[in-house]
Amino acid sequence: MGKVVVDITMSLDGYVAGPNPTLEEPLGKNGEELHEWVLQTEAWRGQHGLEGGEAGQDSELTEERVASVGAHVMGRRMFSGGSGAWEDDPRSMGWWGDNPPFHVPVFVLTHHAREPVEMEGGTTFVFITDGIESAVEQARAAAGDRDVAIAGGGAAVQQALAAGLVDEMQVHVAPILLGGGTRLFGEDADPVRLEATRVLSSPKATHLRFDVRS
Amino acid sequence: MGKVVVDITMSLDGYVAGPNPTLEEPLGKNGEELHEWVLQTEAWRGQHGLEGGEAGQDSELTEERVASVGAHVMGRRMFSGGSGAWEDDPRSMGWWGDNPPFHVPVFVLTHHAREPVEMEGGTTFVFITDGIESAVEQARAAAGDRDVAIAGGGAAVQQALAAGLVDEMQVHVAPILLGGGTRLFGEDADPVRLEATRVLSSPKATHLRFDVRS
Repeated sequence: MGKVVVDITMSLDGYVAGPNPTLEEPLGKNGEELHEWVLQTEAWRGQHGLEGGEAGQDSELTEERVASVGAHVMGRRMFSGGSGAWEDDPRSMGWWGDNPPFHVPVFVLTHHAREPVEMEGGTTFVFITDGIESAVEQARAAAGDRDVAIAGGGAAVQQALAAGLVDEMQVHVAPILLGGGTRLFGEDADPVRLEATRVLSSPKATHLRFDVRS
Repeated sequence: MGKVVVDITMSLDGYVAGPNPTLEEPLGKNGEELHEWVLQTEAWRGQHGLEGGEAGQDSELTEERVASVGAHVMGRRMFSGGSGAWEDDPRSMGWWGDNPPFHVPVFVLTHHAREPVEMEGGTTFVFITDGIESAVEQARAAAGDRDVAIAGGGAAVQQALAAGLVDEMQVHVAPILLGGGTRLFGEDADPVRLEATRVLSSPKATHLRFDVRS
């Protein structure tokens, strides 16, 4: 059976998005800078149907994750930027167009029930209204031998950690202090001991991988 | 002239101390675990007049910092755990006994004026009531060609960053999520771009060094 992994990029000051996210700027002020390390990789571009990009370690890491993940879990806001009823959500099909870059099932945490949506290219969005444990259980079943990735945002990661569901975390630390925004980690959580299993660095990010010990 | 460096240990979730600090447990719940990487090094033990300890990378890093720093700047709470008038502060001479491990001048940010205190072994505590810029300026003068280290806590680091005083940051990331406590970085700060200049890792900490670019 695969692992449940958190794989997410944060600023050195712990933000996964900058202040004041909008539909036009979903990652908030300067939030796009977090992802510079991945956006220019050959692997990311290929996954999104684009040519070119840089090879090398950042690209290999991206490929490694794509190959290992059999299902994703994400929060509603990461999925669409919206909240509330789906019919009022301008991005109710997600951010990614007709052929999203996942190519595996994606389990979206929401309070608003909805039938699954099958997209082009093998991505199916499944909407889960009974919480993180159910989402991870269904994602595990869908992923088979491959891993389940908790893709974010911060709230989904915090819920998964609090429920003891996470086996491994890979945090990509971008070399910026955003100064505000959405935090990856919460304020009133139980302590979690980690064990560093790999550290890689490139000019655009430091990739810290940990096993979750408790 | 030396640099102004931040050199501080935080948990992966960004805390420099755990929840509920007390005089008995000044680093809060589980906060001591942050510093396991340094406490067992030969360099740290030697600096504190103790024998033994582990050699190796963590020890070398500790030595490197001790050799490079000509003055420290720290907040009042890091100095004594107290606040308010000095005569009511049970740790008004600091945490470290008669021969503190600094052996250079230490500039303490406080709202309560006080004459400098000369300790054994070359440490002098100088109390600064007119803010971080003044503290860093006086520390620079005292340090000469060596570096000024902003030793913490979070508020002192945030003030130094906001004032544009920091040239370099070295953040030692301990493999734990403390889940709450005192944060290293604030909520309403301007963005700061960094450039990674070195990444080192050991089982007990990942040492991330950055130049501050803006």
